[in-house]
Amino acid sequence: MLGVETTGFELDRRLEADTMHVMWLGLCELRLMDDCRWPWLLLVPQRPGAAEVHEMTPLDQAMLTFETNMVAEALKNATGCFKINTGAIGNIVRQLHVHVVARFEGDANWPGPVWGHGEREPYRRENAHQFADLIATALFPNR
Amino acid sequence: MLGVETTGFELDRRLEADTMHVMWLGLCELRLMDDCRWPWLLLVPQRPGAAEVHEMTPLDQAMLTFETNMVAEALKNATGCFKINTGAIGNIVRQLHVHVVARFEGDANWPGPVWGHGEREPYRRENAHQFADLIATALFPNR
Repeated sequence: MLGVETTGFELDRRLEADTMHVMWLGLCELRLMDDCRWPWLLLVPQRPGAAEVHEMTPLDQAMLTFETNMVAEALKNATGCFKINTGAIGNIVRQLHVHVVARFEGDANWPGPVWGHGEREPYRRENAHQFADLIATALFPNR
Repeated sequence: MLGVETTGFELDRRLEADTMHVMWLGLCELRLMDDCRWPWLLLVPQRPGAAEVHEMTPLDQAMLTFETNMVAEALKNATGCFKINTGAIGNIVRQLHVHVVARFEGDANWPGPVWGHGEREPYRRENAHQFADLIATALFPNR
């Protein structure tokens, strides 16, 4: 995490419980939503107290945009999905986090949103690791 | 629209039907969702064929971020809302558009998402104009 001030940052407990670590980006931790109904990633800026994107510094806003779009492109390439859905909602968990979700025609709740739909369906452990690895490779092919 | 290439851009007919013009920003047209259940704005980048944020040029991505966050801040200041929800979804209308919604604890479908919830409730015409004016003033107090 060179160059990023993370002192005092702690991941919200509900995010910790519902998601899994994928990798560290420059500003954000990239995590996988443990819900196999949709390929669903979260970016969590390592900024204590951040709740709204527009309250971040302009540099952080630009970095968040860059990382979000990099992740969106990798997710689309890795899954061949029909559409990317992104959102910063935070009505339940206030800690700032950005959703990046791969959608397919006919998937669960299509064409409605993923948020608030039904019950989370956790991955089998090996499938989650496989998917996290697929995403990491799509992001950094030469790592 | 000085400096922005808009040749060939046409607003999607469903966006045209469900939303109202508020003002032109640098890259985007700012529109008001004609649904009085939530204060709900849309930014529509004037780019023919754009469907995913990550497929735009880096400059357009930066401008979209800047304009989205400027609108989010103005909407929060103008409404005193509890939380801003932003999203780029586009499962139904493919033309790229970014939602910026003001949420209040206990509002319709709180804390769930606004997308896909119930039926749109159009404004009374004078209330829509009043709200559009409030937002324009929050964005540009000295206009």
